[in-house]
Amino acid sequence: MKHPPLVETLIEAFTCLPGVGPRSAQRMTYALLERGREQGRELAGALQAAMDGVSHCERCRNYAERTNAEQNLCAICLDPRRDSSLICIVSSPANVLAVEQSGEFRGHYFVLMGELSPLDGVGPRELGLDVLEQRLRDGEIRELILATGTTVEGEATAHYILDLAREAGVSVTRIAQGVPMGGDLEFVDGATLAQALRARRPFAD
Amino acid sequence: MKHPPLVETLIEAFTCLPGVGPRSAQRMTYALLERGREQGRELAGALQAAMDGVSHCERCRNYAERTNAEQNLCAICLDPRRDSSLICIVSSPANVLAVEQSGEFRGHYFVLMGELSPLDGVGPRELGLDVLEQRLRDGEIRELILATGTTVEGEATAHYILDLAREAGVSVTRIAQGVPMGGDLEFVDGATLAQALRARRPFAD
Ligand SMILES: [Zn+2]
Ligand SMILES: [Zn+2]
Repeated sequence: MKHPPLVETLIEAFTCLPGVGPRSAQRMTYALLERGREQGRELAGALQAAMDGVSHCERCRNYAERTNAEQNLCAICLDPRRDSSLICIVSSPANVLAVEQSGEFRGHYFVLMGELSPLDGVGPRELGLDVLEQRLRDGEIRELILATGTTVEGEATAHYILDLAREAGVSVTRIAQGVPMGGDLEFVDGATLAQALRARRPFAD
Repeated sequence: MKHPPLVETLIEAFTCLPGVGPRSAQRMTYALLERGREQGRELAGALQAAMDGVSHCERCRNYAERTNAEQNLCAICLDPRRDSSLICIVSSPANVLAVEQSGEFRGHYFVLMGELSPLDGVGPRELGLDVLEQRLRDGEIRELILATGTTVEGEATAHYILDLAREAGVSVTRIAQGVPMGGDLEFVDGATLAQALRARRPFAD
């Protein structure tokens, strides 16, 4: 004897979420069925809308909503007041938010959506580095600011991008060490990040 | 600058789930957008179907799917091989599964969907105890087996139901409390061990 199929199916579906095991999935299902049917319907709608409507900016790879425009661009890439010759490289959309909250940066981003990790099948192409390489060659970019993580993967990614930029003759800086070692950018407070950006230095190995 | 609205809305919607704060909600959203769009759509569908299609058995209050039948009954209440004069009282559908998995019980259930907690606005009516009282008076029930929790709320609930059953002249038993089978004594908490000692019985093979 189990739960009714609709209940079992929902519990099973919740386990696709990171950090959610069978017990949490059951607790979530019960909570929505008992006290949150309307919230459950809202979550269903938000999920469906996001899965169908969220795409990636063709310029910087950050999240962008699908539009009917010829090119799918995010709000930052579309903002004419921002400096498109200055590109901050980050590994995730959360890191874009963190840098934005520092209030210190008015350039554009390039969002890797990950870091180099050959064992997990994440190579340069998966991070869009072929696209970045082409943009570096186009001559529009004046400076790359590296703001990838300080983990082993983050370092490897930074060095790979440094090589690309050197070949294209584009100068590369890196946000100052002041960011805690081994930490993720999204856990750094805005003031620290602002300072790290101001104190950026030429990057070399 | 924030995420695109569809992304923000999904992150916000995830925080309605128990144990999910803004950071987990963001991790869930990213995971589905990056590696699980199809799973995200399945979760949306499962949510919508469960929110709309899951009801409560009119007899025992356990989960049951909405049907076109005159009375909405769960699979256990509909099973003619089960003894409807023996009712096991539990506080949640998960506890029904636990008792079913013991393979020891072939009666019916009454699922409180909670325990008495006046400060949280959970009184007898919220637990369906008015319905249970009516069923006790109808004379069909021979024995109530209390399997509510052993917390303060569980005890209060058990005593409230004991009074209802006494007034209706229905006998009440309670599942034995003691040391779990197959466990080592050193992992058993003091309160359980004390109860197990108080409830000791003559030993014979
Ligand atoms: Zn963009
Ligand atoms: Zn039932």
